[in-house]
Amino acid sequence: MIRSYFGKILTVSALAALLGVSVVSPAAAEVSEETTYVFNTLLFLMAGFLVMWMAAGFCMLESGLVRSKNVTMQSLKNMALYSIACLLYLLVGYGFMYPGSWIAEGYLGMTSITSLPGHEAEDITYASVGSDFFFQLVFCAATASIVSGTVAERIKLWPFLAFTVILTGFIYPIQGSWTWGGGWLSEMGFSDFAGSTIVHSVGGWAALTGAIILGARKGKYGPDGKVHPMPGSNLTLATLGTFILWLGWFGFNGGSQLAMGSLGDVSDVSRIFANTNTAAAAGALAALILTAVLYKKPDLTMVLNGALAGLVAITAEPLAPSLLWSVVVGAVGGVIVVITVPLLDKFKIDDVVGAIPVHLFAGIWGTIAVVFSNGDASIVTQIIGIVAIGAFVAITSAVFWLILKAVMGLRPTEEEEDLGLDQAELGMEAYPEFGRGSQSL
Amino acid sequence: MIRSYFGKILTVSALAALLGVSVVSPAAAEVSEETTYVFNTLLFLMAGFLVMWMAAGFCMLESGLVRSKNVTMQSLKNMALYSIACLLYLLVGYGFMYPGSWIAEGYLGMTSITSLPGHEAEDITYASVGSDFFFQLVFCAATASIVSGTVAERIKLWPFLAFTVILTGFIYPIQGSWTWGGGWLSEMGFSDFAGSTIVHSVGGWAALTGAIILGARKGKYGPDGKVHPMPGSNLTLATLGTFILWLGWFGFNGGSQLAMGSLGDVSDVSRIFANTNTAAAAGALAALILTAVLYKKPDLTMVLNGALAGLVAITAEPLAPSLLWSVVVGAVGGVIVVITVPLLDKFKIDDVVGAIPVHLFAGIWGTIAVVFSNGDASIVTQIIGIVAIGAFVAITSAVFWLILKAVMGLRPTEEEEDLGLDQAELGMEAYPEFGRGSQSL
Amino acid sequence: MIRSYFGKILTVSALAALLGVSVVSPAAAEVSEETTYVFNTLLFLMAGFLVMWMAAGFCMLESGLVRSKNVTMQSLKNMALYSIACLLYLLVGYGFMYPGSWIAEGYLGMTSITSLPGHEAEDITYASVGSDFFFQLVFCAATASIVSGTVAERIKLWPFLAFTVILTGFIYPIQGSWTWGGGWLSEMGFSDFAGSTIVHSVGGWAALTGAIILGARKGKYGPDGKVHPMPGSNLTLATLGTFILWLGWFGFNGGSQLAMGSLGDVSDVSRIFANTNTAAAAGALAALILTAVLYKKPDLTMVLNGALAGLVAITAEPLAPSLLWSVVVGAVGGVIVVITVPLLDKFKIDDVVGAIPVHLFAGIWGTIAVVFSNGDASIVTQIIGIVAIGAFVAITSAVFWLILKAVMGLRPTEEEEDLGLDQAELGMEAYPEFGRGSQSL
Repeated sequence: MIRSYFGKILTVSALAALLGVSVVSPAAAEVSEETTYVFNTLLFLMAGFLVMWMAAGFCMLESGLVRSKNVTMQSLKNMALYSIACLLYLLVGYGFMYPGSWIAEGYLGMTSITSLPGHEAEDITYASVGSDFFFQLVFCAATASIVSGTVAERIKLWPFLAFTVILTGFIYPIQGSWTWGGGWLSEMGFSDFAGSTIVHSVGGWAALTGAIILGARKGKYGPDGKVHPMPGSNLTLATLGTFILWLGWFGFNGGSQLAMGSLGDVSDVSRIFANTNTAAAAGALAALILTAVLYKKPDLTMVLNGALAGLVAITAEPLAPSLLWSVVVGAVGGVIVVITVPLLDKFKIDDVVGAIPVHLFAGIWGTIAVVFSNGDASIVTQIIGIVAIGAFVAITSAVFWLILKAVMGLRPTEEEEDLGLDQAELGMEAYPEFGRGSQSL
Repeated sequence: MIRSYFGKILTVSALAALLGVSVVSPAAAEVSEETTYVFNTLLFLMAGFLVMWMAAGFCMLESGLVRSKNVTMQSLKNMALYSIACLLYLLVGYGFMYPGSWIAEGYLGMTSITSLPGHEAEDITYASVGSDFFFQLVFCAATASIVSGTVAERIKLWPFLAFTVILTGFIYPIQGSWTWGGGWLSEMGFSDFAGSTIVHSVGGWAALTGAIILGARKGKYGPDGKVHPMPGSNLTLATLGTFILWLGWFGFNGGSQLAMGSLGDVSDVSRIFANTNTAAAAGALAALILTAVLYKKPDLTMVLNGALAGLVAITAEPLAPSLLWSVVVGAVGGVIVVITVPLLDKFKIDDVVGAIPVHLFAGIWGTIAVVFSNGDASIVTQIIGIVAIGAFVAITSAVFWLILKAVMGLRPTEEEEDLGLDQAELGMEAYPEFGRGSQSL
Repeated sequence: MIRSYFGKILTVSALAALLGVSVVSPAAAEVSEETTYVFNTLLFLMAGFLVMWMAAGFCMLESGLVRSKNVTMQSLKNMALYSIACLLYLLVGYGFMYPGSWIAEGYLGMTSITSLPGHEAEDITYASVGSDFFFQLVFCAATASIVSGTVAERIKLWPFLAFTVILTGFIYPIQGSWTWGGGWLSEMGFSDFAGSTIVHSVGGWAALTGAIILGARKGKYGPDGKVHPMPGSNLTLATLGTFILWLGWFGFNGGSQLAMGSLGDVSDVSRIFANTNTAAAAGALAALILTAVLYKKPDLTMVLNGALAGLVAITAEPLAPSLLWSVVVGAVGGVIVVITVPLLDKFKIDDVVGAIPVHLFAGIWGTIAVVFSNGDASIVTQIIGIVAIGAFVAITSAVFWLILKAVMGLRPTEEEEDLGLDQAELGMEAYPEFGRGSQSL
């Protein structure tokens, strides 16, 4: 059997002859309007479920990188934040983000999408509103997932969830409307294909302000400036989480083509798949080699974050690069992680899972890197976008973190932090029969 | 870049002009018959692999919620029950369930589908038989997965697998034929879109009768009526399992549209995705808030089961509700779980993973709730369906559980139960080097 | 609601009447050329992401089956080998494998695919180059994943990665070109639909030579010939890995139809899904029953490997068999695993995860079994293919393993092996707080 074009054609033709059907109808060589509608909708649904699956990836990554005494809490936060994002985006977010969107006219200006339009109101020249809503929603949820990892192990459940409400219902969709909703950044020509800045850096800025306002975990930084390592409890889970995120990213970037019902669109989705995969691989290998060179011992958590940084970096422009340039974009992402993780420790910014280097720093790199492969992008506009969104998110996040701190307090008591949030806030352990777990019973 | 309809149209048009192709051909605006066939078949395949993946979700959920001494057994049971379902559905189930199905005439009345029809026997106006077979099969397997969680930790391997043979080969497909096979419940107008009753409650009834006939795990209920908690060994696995099930449910409900080759169908699938996701989120949050209010400490396992109950509840009618009504349907599901889990304990019915509240009670709620959003459904018919299927499954399950009890015995000895099924029946531990595991070596 | 063809047709027609559209347009009953292109490309993308996901499956399976002191290393190797495969296949592999492929003429004879062709160079009669590249790449990665399990726990990181470079950049693509690239085995009529030999046995031969040259883990085989069992650290992870692989296999075999844009192709993909699933189930149950009979105690790891062996066995011909014959093909695969795992131990060949029985022995069986269902296959040609590929891979692998042994050494010191590769080479534990982990701190 030849697994190639020529062999295939023969097989298909022979089969067609056998069945008495013509496989290709020359009179109708193009894709019909309704078929395109089905393809576009299908893209949103497939990409949507892949991105939804990233919620599990973040959950596993973060649950694997915290200490066992905070694992139940980390899983709970991830399950809850995804759920909150779903409802808040429905109630206010989608309306904030797409005020000028393609939703049927009656919906213009609304802030809730409490029901989906009927068939007669669907736009046959594009895709189903429900599929678009689902696709946009899971991006919003991804933004919130980024924050939970950085602020893990030392923030109480309810203020964290309250912040998630603000982030998913207001901060994310408002800045999102500036570009993807057709707002001022879009008009300026800011180019962020699938959201290196609009999703990842937004999560990163919210995480950074949270980490600063919260302060570090107790004991993380000694009085002498020494960094006390607090190893994650389950590295296979963290690895699984990374693989899940890698898989989900095909939906994240591929779906952001927003159409696949033509030769041009589906070929672009293919190119995006190949580039996305390549950048992730390059990020992982760059981190592997660099940690081996710098520290003599390769570091699995750096390799995982390197792959993720490669993915974040290619996200702003996964279509235009050649495969070889995707290697460069991803590898630089991996290098950024290895260099900036210890840098954050220097400033005593305690980022439990490394989300700030991965999502913020590699996101900035990716957004700037657009100009090297996409001739339509301007470095000035890219920087304006990065700065404007960064300033907006950092300021609004800081305000809300500070309000929450004043109103309900962000941190558990020191005793509770020592005991672990699982016992202190939930009365439930993730691994009651293993190791430390059984000792503490 | 505008991530919106207007921007997209411009891009596509510009591209089309560039390539010299017309993206939309007005003369052939509709979906051709063969294209519809491909889309429908593709829906079954995609939805099918998503539902197949739910087998892993159940396995992780259950393996995470049993104690470490029974984890290997729980994983083995899940792997084996899925495999049994595959073969039994092939040998007898599919034939029992679809006696009047759309399979080519020659297949009418058969009880085995030992081979799939050739191309010439496929029905070009619908979808491939193989894709339908695969899709129906994974629903059957899901039913069996529900049972294994409830009866965990105290049933021997072989009687459990023998019951699975009966459930997947006979009980499930026979009652399934009443509605989905075009039988008497279908003629009455019983409405159960993707199986709140036909799949989930069926699993739930089989689990309930099994739990009653088996009795509780040794030590679960003290002589003074006190409930002794037996915490699950690995809550991150349980969380992962829940995320997997959530993901798989897009196939479960979305695929049950049974077609996606037209604007109407694919838009309906989109609506189903959005509603399904919304109900799950609402179920999780309802359980989170309710456990926080009732017990002061939010309970992760309740949140997980709340999400699942939301999913089960929306399954009977994921298409008709508005997004807002999906919130209500799902949230009530979550509330039901929180209220009925302790209720079962009152009756000393030991449901290890909470599958009866999730799949049976939330399934009944979902089946009744159909009447609030789907004008064609009648409350009387819905109750007739719930009662008829419930009675059939409860009675036949009870008979077979009792036969198995008489013939081969259901429970291990008390010593074996204390030791754990892993050592007693399998001679193999899931976590030989962790905690209790290493102590018991 | 009737979940059947007749009911569906009524619903669709009623809806169509309501919307005033005709669902089926008799004048354009066939799939247009561009629509076929989109479908074919979509098949590669979907199947591609499913096969990519198998990398996570191998990682979980292997990380679950090694002892906890080597788990971080096993996860790292899996993440790194996938990344290496991505870059090597890009730089040299794809060019080696498809010298006569359907890539636009300008690419003929090249050995790197550093960028993908533009829309104008895509072949509208088939599928996008990018999607094909991605699909082929993940098959290459799967081959490398097979090796890492066998040689686990006793090979240093860098020589293993160096071998992966050779395997993915040269050995795999060169032998792949003989059949799938249209080379001499293809011309002879060697039939290996999705790669029982070309992928799985290739990985198996590379693993076998590696295991022999490396030698067994310290202490595995006593001086008296006794086999010392070294149980895996986390059997739920191993089970999860198996479910992931099972899921991914739908892409592996289904995608190897290489087209789905017509009734014939998509129906074939459906048949492949059903047969693949059936063989896996049969393999698992055969191993379950056989281990129960032989050893009195069913063995979960054998059941997992039985499912995988069923999958490998059906891979050479997942299209032609009836469902019933798929049961036989898969069951024999499961039996082979149960019989040959102890056989390897007799020869003191230490295969940590059982990859040689699963991928090599069941792969050979599957390749031979083609002749029983596919009339076009010849037993002589099948054996020539098995032997030729086996000889090529065994010899080249052995040469490179020996070169690596001479140049950089393959094994860690005995002290390092005792300590575990995680501490010795990485200074990082996978489960620092559990069981042995915490004792060794």
